[in-house]
Amino acid sequence: MNRFGERFTITTFGESHGKALGCIIDGVPSGVRIDEKFIQQELNRRKPGKSKLETARKEDDKVEILSGTFNGLSTGTPIMMIIFNNNQKSRDYDNIKNLFRPAHADFTYYHKYGIRDYRGGGRSSARETVARVAGGAIAKLILKSIGVEIQSGLSAVGEIEAKNYDFEYARRSKLYALDKDVEAKQEQVILDAKNSHNSVGGVVVTIAKGVPIGLGEPIYYKLDAILSEAMMSINASKAVEIGDGVLSAKLKGSENNDQITPNGFKTNHSGGILGGVSNGDDIIVKTHFKPTPSIFQPQETVTKDNKATICELKGRHDPCVAVRGSIVCEAMMALVLVDMLLLNMGRKIEHIYTIYQK
Amino acid sequence: MNRFGERFTITTFGESHGKALGCIIDGVPSGVRIDEKFIQQELNRRKPGKSKLETARKEDDKVEILSGTFNGLSTGTPIMMIIFNNNQKSRDYDNIKNLFRPAHADFTYYHKYGIRDYRGGGRSSARETVARVAGGAIAKLILKSIGVEIQSGLSAVGEIEAKNYDFEYARRSKLYALDKDVEAKQEQVILDAKNSHNSVGGVVVTIAKGVPIGLGEPIYYKLDAILSEAMMSINASKAVEIGDGVLSAKLKGSENNDQITPNGFKTNHSGGILGGVSNGDDIIVKTHFKPTPSIFQPQETVTKDNKATICELKGRHDPCVAVRGSIVCEAMMALVLVDMLLLNMGRKIEHIYTIYQK
Amino acid sequence: MNRFGERFTITTFGESHGKALGCIIDGVPSGVRIDEKFIQQELNRRKPGKSKLETARKEDDKVEILSGTFNGLSTGTPIMMIIFNNNQKSRDYDNIKNLFRPAHADFTYYHKYGIRDYRGGGRSSARETVARVAGGAIAKLILKSIGVEIQSGLSAVGEIEAKNYDFEYARRSKLYALDKDVEAKQEQVILDAKNSHNSVGGVVVTIAKGVPIGLGEPIYYKLDAILSEAMMSINASKAVEIGDGVLSAKLKGSENNDQITPNGFKTNHSGGILGGVSNGDDIIVKTHFKPTPSIFQPQETVTKDNKATICELKGRHDPCVAVRGSIVCEAMMALVLVDMLLLNMGRKIEHIYTIYQK
Amino acid sequence: MNRFGERFTITTFGESHGKALGCIIDGVPSGVRIDEKFIQQELNRRKPGKSKLETARKEDDKVEILSGTFNGLSTGTPIMMIIFNNNQKSRDYDNIKNLFRPAHADFTYYHKYGIRDYRGGGRSSARETVARVAGGAIAKLILKSIGVEIQSGLSAVGEIEAKNYDFEYARRSKLYALDKDVEAKQEQVILDAKNSHNSVGGVVVTIAKGVPIGLGEPIYYKLDAILSEAMMSINASKAVEIGDGVLSAKLKGSENNDQITPNGFKTNHSGGILGGVSNGDDIIVKTHFKPTPSIFQPQETVTKDNKATICELKGRHDPCVAVRGSIVCEAMMALVLVDMLLLNMGRKIEHIYTIYQK
Repeated sequence: MNRFGERFTITTFGESHGKALGCIIDGVPSGVRIDEKFIQQELNRRKPGKSKLETARKEDDKVEILSGTFNGLSTGTPIMMIIFNNNQKSRDYDNIKNLFRPAHADFTYYHKYGIRDYRGGGRSSARETVARVAGGAIAKLILKSIGVEIQSGLSAVGEIEAKNYDFEYARRSKLYALDKDVEAKQEQVILDAKNSHNSVGGVVVTIAKGVPIGLGEPIYYKLDAILSEAMMSINASKAVEIGDGVLSAKLKGSENNDQITPNGFKTNHSGGILGGVSNGDDIIVKTHFKPTPSIFQPQETVTKDNKATICELKGRHDPCVAVRGSIVCEAMMALVLVDMLLLNMGRKIEHIYTIYQK
Repeated sequence: MNRFGERFTITTFGESHGKALGCIIDGVPSGVRIDEKFIQQELNRRKPGKSKLETARKEDDKVEILSGTFNGLSTGTPIMMIIFNNNQKSRDYDNIKNLFRPAHADFTYYHKYGIRDYRGGGRSSARETVARVAGGAIAKLILKSIGVEIQSGLSAVGEIEAKNYDFEYARRSKLYALDKDVEAKQEQVILDAKNSHNSVGGVVVTIAKGVPIGLGEPIYYKLDAILSEAMMSINASKAVEIGDGVLSAKLKGSENNDQITPNGFKTNHSGGILGGVSNGDDIIVKTHFKPTPSIFQPQETVTKDNKATICELKGRHDPCVAVRGSIVCEAMMALVLVDMLLLNMGRKIEHIYTIYQK
Repeated sequence: MNRFGERFTITTFGESHGKALGCIIDGVPSGVRIDEKFIQQELNRRKPGKSKLETARKEDDKVEILSGTFNGLSTGTPIMMIIFNNNQKSRDYDNIKNLFRPAHADFTYYHKYGIRDYRGGGRSSARETVARVAGGAIAKLILKSIGVEIQSGLSAVGEIEAKNYDFEYARRSKLYALDKDVEAKQEQVILDAKNSHNSVGGVVVTIAKGVPIGLGEPIYYKLDAILSEAMMSINASKAVEIGDGVLSAKLKGSENNDQITPNGFKTNHSGGILGGVSNGDDIIVKTHFKPTPSIFQPQETVTKDNKATICELKGRHDPCVAVRGSIVCEAMMALVLVDMLLLNMGRKIEHIYTIYQK
Repeated sequence: MNRFGERFTITTFGESHGKALGCIIDGVPSGVRIDEKFIQQELNRRKPGKSKLETARKEDDKVEILSGTFNGLSTGTPIMMIIFNNNQKSRDYDNIKNLFRPAHADFTYYHKYGIRDYRGGGRSSARETVARVAGGAIAKLILKSIGVEIQSGLSAVGEIEAKNYDFEYARRSKLYALDKDVEAKQEQVILDAKNSHNSVGGVVVTIAKGVPIGLGEPIYYKLDAILSEAMMSINASKAVEIGDGVLSAKLKGSENNDQITPNGFKTNHSGGILGGVSNGDDIIVKTHFKPTPSIFQPQETVTKDNKATICELKGRHDPCVAVRGSIVCEAMMALVLVDMLLLNMGRKIEHIYTIYQK
């Protein structure tokens, strides 16, 4: 299934080394000013090769809109965006075409489909997230117009964790670091991993400010549940926390409950979500990324016909996928929030009167 | 939205203090022996009041099947199961009908819907999970018939964590404890919380053994993403980990990658999922539950018209929702796996030939 | 699949001779006054045994609401309605349990599922429509509150066709006849069929007045396409026409186009739908029902093991299913229109501003 | 909503005069040989300008596959197909940009979205069906490999109806006529309409041979209901019949019931569908198309600000949309059947054992 969302949906296509990647965004309300420059900027933030902390692969990641707009406005019809692949070096992958790279989707895709596009992971490559970022940019344009802002940053690299979160700083930091004070250490951990032909995990915090109260469908399309699905659908993510998350499970109710005053909640342990529905506070989600599976050390593996062999990778890979993952987390949060905005319309019979009786 | 699943779906209904709760399970293949005794046993495992570690509320939780079976077999038509409510003490809730209990869904439901069934939380009550357990039991019957087994247990209560996981032991333990050696301490933490009119968080580990390779739709209906959605949709859950989860993000690739031999994976850091698809190893999911929001200490809150007031709860509540949460986690995992089994059929053109050409 | 609708969904359960039938209606906005008397009246209109034109089977069809309301108002949570079966004479079906009744679903259900609930057709029985009528009644309550009214009537029985449509008259007619002048003839055709152990087909016209402009999703969830699906999903329906339908295909553009004046459309050949979207005029749908397959004449058929045999039915059946089918057509149209009302919210960015910025 | 299907889905994008049109086909099993030449041939059958019976607009309709295949086989990932627009003469539409063409979607789209891409109808143009035909070609490749064949032809033009159906002949006829004996008359009716600046309606019959028994989900995703939705979603269609359709409603049960012998059904009044499920006989669907709304005679209409005006169209249009509509009907039937093939897998527990236990 290559679609995400119920009312505001993204359907993506394309492989790492195919001709193009892209998406169709369906459910965009008419009348949204589609700022193409902003969309390209979002893609640029995700683009590899901006620093030595990222893969050296160069991709233009130039996006084109092929439908759904007229005179700069959305028309209510599907917006199709495409990114053509230019920098395909399929031969990098010739030596791995008959074996499974450990911790990659090679093994499961081959067994599921009986066929495998081995060039750069094919569809399982994180390159697919370029389409998510394009779609997320459309969602952000809608959110901005009602005052919702999404921010993200890197809170941890390996064992080095941020003490403070400064999302403004993260925006300017080349590794999107949330804490200036540990940034240098985090950078060093990444470079050490890279230099030792290894990789390292990391953690991304994503927040949304200004979210209206009431978003999230109770029971089975809860805001926290769908945010978890969204973040866990990103390549290499292995854990998701809402608000205090893992910490909450260690606490007493008296410590964890957010008490309420006429001016709002006294604390935000909940991450802005109660009963699966937004409560007006900041939405806070933490996504944990495993280390990049592609490392340049010899690893035991098997061939397609289950013979033991050694996997020795070449090529170019991010030593820490969490870095660029932060931009993808923002995109996924934006997609979820717009979907929830639309789903929430018509929850009260008054909404229906408002829209249809005037 | 009160439905979960794509091909094997559960749709639930009912409120804590309404006339009945239940579910419709759609997509059950025909020919499954529907063992009603087993379904009732599953409900009994979740039923409150079995020990002083649980709420003193007594519920029969007697399930009736009203459709979808004939001579003890599923017919392919929807299976409807109902549990009538017997032990409703709505008056317990009179004193809270005009205020919002901190950390509850009261606040968000009221603002979303403009109306609120205050009796026991109404639809937002964890009592809704009785329907999930009934549905999960049907899913387990299907899974058992192909050799898939689901187990769960409590790994942590507050700060007391299991050192070893013994799922057989957990099944017999009254708090579903995974580690016999810390069980007494965990029990004490719960009793201490209860005696001090407080509550405490906990962590549940759920595993599935014998899962075929290939379950999970790549990209947006990944097995790990949907398991995360499923677990996060359970009341009071705040974080979900797949395999090593949070720990993975602290590691190097060389430590986290599961190397492969002709006899299988050497380790299972991944939790049995690569690229969103099952790899044949045990599926491992950890769910973190916050402390029960209902505590019996005075808390600051506001009334429906936003006046400051003090919330003083009466009534009967689990001091640690994670205990009974483990049964719900099993149910959700079972529902996800059967859905994925069905979705995966027809992934290869050979599957279609096999089914239609003979 | 036992669910219909995208945002306003009905999921039904139950078999002809099972314990109960019913439905869960999900997506009901909060604050709708749920008039139980009205719902029961709708069921009474569909109830069999009201005249000799209908099956002699007596069913109370007493509906109970088990969830989703509080103090007479919808709460936004799923509304579950149940109708217990009382008048089950399974033994009527003993003689047909090993053969397939011609033109019935017996043959296809048995081959699809390998199992068959032969009692009264089981799930394939038109008795399932009792749940649709209950759900449709909820939809009608919503529609009425914004001034949309649904009406229906029988336009043809066999070859006897109405010359004029009088929906007010149809409401009072015992065969829901649209044309008083041909009603007696139509009644006689039904009685003749009944007396000769036969059955006869018929045609139902369903209209909606006061539908807002703009309902229907362009391209693949068009209002006319979904109305067609809805009507064709009713037992025994074999054709659906929108507006002039079959006649349109015989005309010239100059005859069929509805020209427009500042006061509206000059004609309504289109049946109120252009490009799949409502245009403000009456929505007009015609549904053609085949004759009841259950006739009391000997028919050639085969047994489950494909041996030739003769089917000789006993029991009680409507001689013309179109009569009571008209009430089901109304219900389906109501369900579609409320779904479309909800889907259409948020089509313009202004809608989002209206709902979220005040 | 721009998506059709549940398991085998087509999502289309693009406007009449935009940069490109196309689709993403999701749910294609892996291992299907993707014959690009066949796909292009299907597009060529639909392509305008092949005779004077069609619009003079010339479109190359050259299709490119941008994802989802590897070495000529489907990989299980989404197949994206694109058709770039070359022959856009937007200026043809300048004179109609402020008025609503009668019987077009102009009026409803404008009111729904508050915005309107007036160039050739934008998204509401029948040019969107080029994407359906591309998707349908993928579906046909799957169907062919299990022996299912789809055919179509024109049965009526205006009042001239075919007496006999010869689908082989229709394939070679330039107006896809089913009956050679009335073809010349039908052609004359079209030319007369064209020469008098008018248009004319028509009827298409679509059949599928070799469909396995058991396709179609009972109750709400019935094969006949979804075929109706599919056909009614095509531009200009106004009625759909299954099997004998409208005629059935005029008959007695004894005339309409298909009796059964050990060698199969004696007749096929049902159109191969009983209880919403295929019975192994030919699937037969009739689709009625209204006359092309674009005619070159003056018509009354209103401007966007509801002032009376006269609509005088220029440009190039098919005088009878049913002609090329037949190819689109085939595509829609193919899409529905593959979706149903996939949905039907896993209906019996034995299917699950077959796929997973070997």
